[in-house]
Amino acid sequence: MKRRDFIKKAGVSGLAVGSVAAPMIARADTKLKWKMVTTWPKNFPVLGTGANLLAETITEMSNGRIDVKVYGAGELVPAFEVFDAVSRGTAELGHGAAYYWKGKIEEAQFFSTVPFGMNSQEMTAWLYHGGGMQLWEKTYEPFGVLPAAGGNTTVQMAGWFNKEINSINDLNGLKMRIPGLGGEVLKRAGGTPVNLPGGELFTSLKTGAIDATEWIGPYNDLAFGFYKAAKYYYYPGWHEPGTALETIINKKAFEALGKDLQSIVRNACKMVNQDMTSEFTAKNNAALETLVNKHNVDLRKLPDDVLAKLKVLSEDVVTELAGKNPAAKEIYNSYDKFRKQVMAWHDISEKIYYNVR
Amino acid sequence: MKRRDFIKKAGVSGLAVGSVAAPMIARADTKLKWKMVTTWPKNFPVLGTGANLLAETITEMSNGRIDVKVYGAGELVPAFEVFDAVSRGTAELGHGAAYYWKGKIEEAQFFSTVPFGMNSQEMTAWLYHGGGMQLWEKTYEPFGVLPAAGGNTTVQMAGWFNKEINSINDLNGLKMRIPGLGGEVLKRAGGTPVNLPGGELFTSLKTGAIDATEWIGPYNDLAFGFYKAAKYYYYPGWHEPGTALETIINKKAFEALGKDLQSIVRNACKMVNQDMTSEFTAKNNAALETLVNKHNVDLRKLPDDVLAKLKVLSEDVVTELAGKNPAAKEIYNSYDKFRKQVMAWHDISEKIYYNVR
Repeated sequence: MKRRDFIKKAGVSGLAVGSVAAPMIARADTKLKWKMVTTWPKNFPVLGTGANLLAETITEMSNGRIDVKVYGAGELVPAFEVFDAVSRGTAELGHGAAYYWKGKIEEAQFFSTVPFGMNSQEMTAWLYHGGGMQLWEKTYEPFGVLPAAGGNTTVQMAGWFNKEINSINDLNGLKMRIPGLGGEVLKRAGGTPVNLPGGELFTSLKTGAIDATEWIGPYNDLAFGFYKAAKYYYYPGWHEPGTALETIINKKAFEALGKDLQSIVRNACKMVNQDMTSEFTAKNNAALETLVNKHNVDLRKLPDDVLAKLKVLSEDVVTELAGKNPAAKEIYNSYDKFRKQVMAWHDISEKIYYNVR
Repeated sequence: MKRRDFIKKAGVSGLAVGSVAAPMIARADTKLKWKMVTTWPKNFPVLGTGANLLAETITEMSNGRIDVKVYGAGELVPAFEVFDAVSRGTAELGHGAAYYWKGKIEEAQFFSTVPFGMNSQEMTAWLYHGGGMQLWEKTYEPFGVLPAAGGNTTVQMAGWFNKEINSINDLNGLKMRIPGLGGEVLKRAGGTPVNLPGGELFTSLKTGAIDATEWIGPYNDLAFGFYKAAKYYYYPGWHEPGTALETIINKKAFEALGKDLQSIVRNACKMVNQDMTSEFTAKNNAALETLVNKHNVDLRKLPDDVLAKLKVLSEDVVTELAGKNPAAKEIYNSYDKFRKQVMAWHDISEKIYYNVR
């Protein structure tokens, strides 16, 4: 063996055993295969493509040390089993929304959205600079799950209806897909809230299994084709004024990472949170124009007195949830204190600016 | 030499010459020292601490392969020489705002803020999902500089005045620190706009060198102590409804990075854009309460007819800038088209929600 060849071979075998170079090389050499399960149809606009972007960004920033594969709803686990799958480590990552787990953790709903509560700008600020994230982490801690904000839908539309809404009484007997606290409010108004994954909504509406559904906003609603199954499209979405979607991470898998990879995962989540929020903001108007001008959608505003009554019912629902257990109370107190403060500030900044510009 | 020692040494020297292991090891071993120059006082709330966070995040995600050191205004170069310093490679990174370079690149002002234009949510959406960033990159391309959104101030306050503003005539003869297009509008109203770095504002206001200054919002304005130097604090900030700050990157330094480090730098910028925006949103109200309740600040709203007249002047200024050269026209067209679309959408979502909640 020539000396030069020996050096090469020694260099290579040193990858595994050399005491000086090993730690560095072990890091560079480690290739983790991670799975991300989602509550959305694979590649669905913004929701699914945002999850894809998160996966790609983690892989790219880590130079392939974490290779993330994304699964749509039902591919590896059903939509509403995403949380459990991440909790038990079947998947290292999940993408969905906290109110989908209300049957398991009722107070988690505060981390998605609150009827008549904060909008996207306020919600993200509460989570990352108002103590919200620490409470969210505490809430998921017993399940071995770490949460991150995973994109914000911004103010949603009130939804698609096959019945005109002229008074609060028109919600009586209405069977509507509406998740989270908004669903509880509908129940108080005499309706029947149903929770279904997005992929099942069109058929349910078309067959009359439900009378109405909300989903997100024009861009996503156009993608599902609801205009072919409902008569009226109502605004504004009082029930979901700025829904934080979520990225969830299996805590053991996260803690096994080095500090750099932990930082990459956490910051990729934050980046995608902003990116998805921007995409919703950018794309809703063109989709709305298509719905109205091309598909002749009947766009309607909910009457002011209906909104006013829904607001009263919402306050009941939210404060009742806050009283259910000490954890819910702690989260509500933090949310409500921040909400009042940011609203006072926005009264003389964002809100007044919208009205004078 | 024992065989084991030789392997170790060969392994180490193999870092430099081994043809198999070298590329991986060279990457892991490279330690770049980067400088970030800023237009802000070192560690100034949100602006300076946001720049620090960006530096730390790049260092952390890269596992120290890029070690970033932050310089406050005047430490390495004066505030308004940040762009030139990054352009010539004196520093690899800079943090400031695009309208500070209007003497060099007039049309760059569109990438910071436009009077009566888009707010923070809309501006970020235009930049990252509406074509704005591509135009920004094209604008800085001749200078060898890559831009990124670097935090958004959200709707600013109209500023600190030593003179009551009861009609548009009260702006006549007013000497005010107000950068960018807002300054041009003040000039049309008969005032004298001055551009000064933040660190010089308090003294200028206190000594009467200027009659008024805007800066950002309560949290930052409290930090500079303007309440000790001015009589009235006006809202809303018509002139800066959502100012995009900027992170700039020396293009050659960026292109010398591997794909993973490029992705780390770009995504750290995006993360910090959201984080700073959230911090402004979270902290302004408590600071406003301190200003009003503790320091007895006289908080005033600009009269509606003053705002209406400023709006007319703003339209003149903005369309005039758009006509100055083909580059300005191209940017304006993109900005204005996006603005109209997103305003139509926000009329039935964000704006109406602020008014009904």
